[in-house]
Amino acid sequence: MNIILGIDPGSRLTGYGVVRQQGNKFVYLASGCIRLGTDELPERLLRIFNGISEIITQTQPTVFAIEQVFMARNPDSALKLGQARGAAIVAAKHAGLEVFEYSARQVKQAVVGTGAADKAQVQHMVRSLLQLSASPQADAADALAVALCHGHTQQSLVALAGQASKTVRRRLR
Amino acid sequence: MNIILGIDPGSRLTGYGVVRQQGNKFVYLASGCIRLGTDELPERLLRIFNGISEIITQTQPTVFAIEQVFMARNPDSALKLGQARGAAIVAAKHAGLEVFEYSARQVKQAVVGTGAADKAQVQHMVRSLLQLSASPQADAADALAVALCHGHTQQSLVALAGQASKTVRRRLR
Repeated sequence: MNIILGIDPGSRLTGYGVVRQQGNKFVYLASGCIRLGTDELPERLLRIFNGISEIITQTQPTVFAIEQVFMARNPDSALKLGQARGAAIVAAKHAGLEVFEYSARQVKQAVVGTGAADKAQVQHMVRSLLQLSASPQADAADALAVALCHGHTQQSLVALAGQASKTVRRRLR
Repeated sequence: MNIILGIDPGSRLTGYGVVRQQGNKFVYLASGCIRLGTDELPERLLRIFNGISEIITQTQPTVFAIEQVFMARNPDSALKLGQARGAAIVAAKHAGLEVFEYSARQVKQAVVGTGAADKAQVQHMVRSLLQLSASPQADAADALAVALCHGHTQQSLVALAGQASKTVRRRLR
């Protein structure tokens, strides 16, 4: 059993989502946003670190997944986003969690089935996959999608490894 | 008495420098580089966080100063630098230190006397101001320069505040 903490980092809001994976089933555990407020940068980064550390203590994830940024709009927003990502990743590593990174395209592909999906489609699929009664807030939905993407990807790898070993077994007969 | 930890963050190397300030005198305490190696990003960011936490434990600084980045070359390098900065700032805040940021221009202005100084001039002035027998390594020199910049700036502010209160006293007579 895996408990996956997914993070959608941002310089104003950092979304988080926690799901439990049992085989090919996913159960919703928690989600929400860490609001960074209008304090100075060091204070905001500490809020990300402390917020994620607290979520880790409360939900005891076994693994951490975060959205990979490969195409920022401009150097200034890339720097801000990088600082937020750095604080989030350090919180996970400080708590001893293994960190996995997925591009936005991989996340959309895993959850909606197409890398070109929009935010509303991601929200809809997250709600449907986790059987939620209401759509989660957009940043929380993105974080849950990252967690689901990790679960799917690992599952596919396990399935592939299983097929590979079956193939090997077949060949060995 | 102030003990100032200066940091020059980078995605491959993070320079640090620690100086003790007594009035307008500065005494060299320590400097060096945290080498981030070729591991995956999360491992490298943890190395920055742990490295700075260890330096804080060893040298017990009273304040933390870091170079501010306002003009990164491109979004990709800005993101990498941002992640390193985020990890460094979180280490300082996690240890309860107040964080001050200075632009490269402010650092050069404070240490060399001109915002357009080059690396060699900064190294030379750091060596001279701290009466070192040899030039520190470039990244360590930049970090020491950030620490000196903070010391100078605070000293100027204290001097200005002193003059202001003298003016007030004069006016009150």
